[in-house]
Amino acid sequence: MGKLYVIGIGPGGLEHMSIRAKEAIEESDIVVGYTRYIEFVKPLLEGKRVFSTGMMGEEDRCKEALKLCKEGTVSVISTGDSGIYGMAGLILELRDDEEVEVIPGITASSAAGSIVGAPLMHDSCNISLSDLMTPYELIKKRVQLAAEGDFVISLYNPRSKGRADYLRENLAVIRKYRNGDTPVALVKNALRDGQEVTIATLDTFDCTKADMLSIVIIGNSQSYIKDGYFVTPRGYKL
Amino acid sequence: MGKLYVIGIGPGGLEHMSIRAKEAIEESDIVVGYTRYIEFVKPLLEGKRVFSTGMMGEEDRCKEALKLCKEGTVSVISTGDSGIYGMAGLILELRDDEEVEVIPGITASSAAGSIVGAPLMHDSCNISLSDLMTPYELIKKRVQLAAEGDFVISLYNPRSKGRADYLRENLAVIRKYRNGDTPVALVKNALRDGQEVTIATLDTFDCTKADMLSIVIIGNSQSYIKDGYFVTPRGYKL
Repeated sequence: MGKLYVIGIGPGGLEHMSIRAKEAIEESDIVVGYTRYIEFVKPLLEGKRVFSTGMMGEEDRCKEALKLCKEGTVSVISTGDSGIYGMAGLILELRDDEEVEVIPGITASSAAGSIVGAPLMHDSCNISLSDLMTPYELIKKRVQLAAEGDFVISLYNPRSKGRADYLRENLAVIRKYRNGDTPVALVKNALRDGQEVTIATLDTFDCTKADMLSIVIIGNSQSYIKDGYFVTPRGYKL
Repeated sequence: MGKLYVIGIGPGGLEHMSIRAKEAIEESDIVVGYTRYIEFVKPLLEGKRVFSTGMMGEEDRCKEALKLCKEGTVSVISTGDSGIYGMAGLILELRDDEEVEVIPGITASSAAGSIVGAPLMHDSCNISLSDLMTPYELIKKRVQLAAEGDFVISLYNPRSKGRADYLRENLAVIRKYRNGDTPVALVKNALRDGQEVTIATLDTFDCTKADMLSIVIIGNSQSYIKDGYFVTPRGYKL
């Protein structure tokens, strides 16, 4: 039986993948992933079998990967970190006796943060606004508690056609606890082709720009913009 | 004037560094970092000038790096992600007109999570228990709100000699909101030499094992242990 790697490839551009992740893909006989993300690692796929499915096909992909590793070494890829809204959880939930190794990657909030400056320098949280598998009331409760705790907040899956208003509603919740001039960054396609960056404030942010390929980062009460960089101070007395 | 890279080298083992981070260090004339972390990238340092200081020397290192980039290309390195409790914030706070590029890395909670399974699969937060620059009351408030919101919680800097009781006190706060059988993982030296892993529960966890080189991850109400893996389900109906 082959080994099953669950790999976070990072933001998408090959150069932000870890050396270990690249080597594990190279070592694999079979690569499994969402069709769109398979494209990101195309230069590594020569001579390999590929199993890909569309969005929402996560469970099928995982089951297939667990079957395929009886035939050779398999890499299941996620963008970002495989353990943060990626495929690692589902693989381990479905795993029977297969040998699994999780290889971490740079998660989307780290990638987006690096592009706009250093917004995540203090206590922070990741919240997904997707309500496919989480009740919307719980999502809103988490946003409210994170706002109350003055966490820097990274919103994953901030907006889709089916829930066009969630982002606006949740920013309004945060606005109750933060000033209107709190920095808000939107990064679409962080560190890969098609990257777009917007830095605004809670009062000026245009929610309609966000989509499922975006990350939205909201600063804490100390965050500020300096020369175009979004900075959250760690607390040094300078 | 040279360029200034602020680089997250990931957990420490060279193979978990991004390809971009490695190339930026190779391209640099001068490398600046905490003495202990400079050791992690030693194979990349041949022929380069190195400026390192001990712990607490962050401000000196940043000021020196900003000076040195007038003489050549400089890399300032942090472990993990440079933008998460790393050097990116301080560099941008102190920056005048130097050209700065932040290069992200795999943060410690991602690294630790990958080792124990997939604990970070749902909404999560990073909280540092260090009160050097954050009032302890604010830290405890954040832990309490994160517990109330059923976030997976990653504790950075969980324990030092000067604050031996903080970890125990904060786990007791979390215990008010979670069952005693909630999984708790301690990973010391994640993905580098000296790695040690303990998986326990809120009721059985031994706080005295934690130190400044450790990350402690506390599951949410749905997290469980399966075949030795710490899994937080994403919510798929399997």
